[in-house]
Amino acid sequence: MIQNDLLLKTLAGDTVERPPVWMMRQAGRILPNYRKIRAKAGSFKNLVTQPDWIAEATVEPVDVLGVDAAIIFSDILVIPEAMGLDYEIIEKKGPLFNDKIRSQRDIDQLIEGDVIPSRLPYVFESIKRTKTILNDRVPLIGFAGAPWTIFAYMVEGSGSKTFSEAKKMIYKEPHLAHQLLSKITSSTIFYLKEKIASGVNVIKLFDSWSGLLNSEIYNEFAWPYAERILTAIDEVPTIFFPKGGWFSYDKFGSSDVFDCLGVGWSTDPKFARQKMGSNRILQGNLDPCRLYDSKQNIEVATSKMLDSFGRNHIANLGHGVYPDTSVENVKCFIDSVKSYRYK
Amino acid sequence: MIQNDLLLKTLAGDTVERPPVWMMRQAGRILPNYRKIRAKAGSFKNLVTQPDWIAEATVEPVDVLGVDAAIIFSDILVIPEAMGLDYEIIEKKGPLFNDKIRSQRDIDQLIEGDVIPSRLPYVFESIKRTKTILNDRVPLIGFAGAPWTIFAYMVEGSGSKTFSEAKKMIYKEPHLAHQLLSKITSSTIFYLKEKIASGVNVIKLFDSWSGLLNSEIYNEFAWPYAERILTAIDEVPTIFFPKGGWFSYDKFGSSDVFDCLGVGWSTDPKFARQKMGSNRILQGNLDPCRLYDSKQNIEVATSKMLDSFGRNHIANLGHGVYPDTSVENVKCFIDSVKSYRYK
Repeated sequence: MIQNDLLLKTLAGDTVERPPVWMMRQAGRILPNYRKIRAKAGSFKNLVTQPDWIAEATVEPVDVLGVDAAIIFSDILVIPEAMGLDYEIIEKKGPLFNDKIRSQRDIDQLIEGDVIPSRLPYVFESIKRTKTILNDRVPLIGFAGAPWTIFAYMVEGSGSKTFSEAKKMIYKEPHLAHQLLSKITSSTIFYLKEKIASGVNVIKLFDSWSGLLNSEIYNEFAWPYAERILTAIDEVPTIFFPKGGWFSYDKFGSSDVFDCLGVGWSTDPKFARQKMGSNRILQGNLDPCRLYDSKQNIEVATSKMLDSFGRNHIANLGHGVYPDTSVENVKCFIDSVKSYRYK
Repeated sequence: MIQNDLLLKTLAGDTVERPPVWMMRQAGRILPNYRKIRAKAGSFKNLVTQPDWIAEATVEPVDVLGVDAAIIFSDILVIPEAMGLDYEIIEKKGPLFNDKIRSQRDIDQLIEGDVIPSRLPYVFESIKRTKTILNDRVPLIGFAGAPWTIFAYMVEGSGSKTFSEAKKMIYKEPHLAHQLLSKITSSTIFYLKEKIASGVNVIKLFDSWSGLLNSEIYNEFAWPYAERILTAIDEVPTIFFPKGGWFSYDKFGSSDVFDCLGVGWSTDPKFARQKMGSNRILQGNLDPCRLYDSKQNIEVATSKMLDSFGRNHIANLGHGVYPDTSVENVKCFIDSVKSYRYK
């Protein structure tokens, strides 16, 4: 029994007094104790493999910010790593892979499927330790990257403004792209199933690079694989966040394989409601940059955003909280949601 | 009298046999002679200030690719430079400004308005030389960045995934943001008027970072300034390209201050048509990554794109052509459009 079950109730479609609130990237980046852990760890990769530190970073926002959910501190790139592609995080630049996937041979050599969880023991150990510390105060969210987003990194080999190498494979060698996407998909399903077995209460699937595609390509190379994962997860509720994927909202609106759709800050809540319907659960979408504003303006903007979404809503930012956001302003956002009541 | 007046006829709403075709970034990046000029110039900044080289780079795609328009080789960042902010282009990284605009004092010190053209003599000289070489074979397009996009660089000081410093000013100090946007607007109007006086036949306004905002912020901080420029340009037709600005299409659909709307590759032609109407002229939008594909597939995709837009359309990519695109494939795209006929 989770004591604060507002998120789970909302995801179940139950009537609640106010929306639950949490923030993408709430574990890490902004909180003082996290920064200490991060400094102690030396590298991001060292931090992300240490269950005790992960548990500490995951629980800190629950204690300090009073959010209605915890999300396990981790990275979407542990999947390519478990599949055999080692990466580093370069400070202020992002991920860099030593190898890239560009050929049939590269794809054939990848590890996939049911062995994946055994290659990421620290993730599941972290979940168990986090659950112990959380002691059922709030639900714990586990996550993964959606296949197109993971594919983009594995083919490109790093972050990119255009991910043109990844898109080149999609256009030029679609059969290779489908093979790689399938391998990522099966690996991700086994990974998420083990996360659920380890105790997470909700699964979130991030398709962070949706916006680089268009509806035709998205609906052929991204959505079918995300859909396969979301269909496979039937033990816990799911949140799907196709960032920038407004062009495929008709597709999402007619799908029932996820419980909640994450909405980015560029997408007007009214557009999302119109495409998805008033009964669908939506999550988002305050612009993270709004948290640079005065407290008074944060309160007004939060309240306006909550009014626009109406019921069946999980309050969040429209993207991860930015590293230079003040903790006070973050609290102001969280508290604005917590003092809101549906009419 | 322009010999190939297909672009001008299309922009005037005349009936034509096929859409005109040109490509963003066609001058520069991919062509062999451009690469030679670029190597000779040493730096991008040195190249962009030399009228002879600019004219050569501008005309090359007309000769080699057979496009229906030339676009002057230049950069949107000459405006901040003329306003007093010097920048460099760092290879593979993008622009870097030595100073950033962050305060009232910074804004007060900026140069603006009618003196701007006198600080960019090489641009107008380049246009005149280009016109001489072009000898009225095709129209010449001049361009500028829209105020929000120029503002984003001036405040951020460089390219950025989030432009969070620029957005911080918009949220936190909107009065400063409006002052800076006004100064950019007045400078850009004088700059574009002088481009027209020097001989360009069409003006294109690039709002490259539209997609970082949402409709509320865009309609307050970006569109009114772009609109002011587009209203001021009444000598030649205008093309407005708010890349990623799908959320403000209702606004654009009800405006008559531009002649043509540029559409990015993420926006479905049908969505653009539905919002803008069948009589409005639209430009775009093949994904630049499609040009990595086989020639047969490029032909099919181009033809499909042309069918989707229908009449009142200028064929183009949905973004600038990428540097590693083969000239043959680019020609295949151009030729596919040129052999197309409206039913």
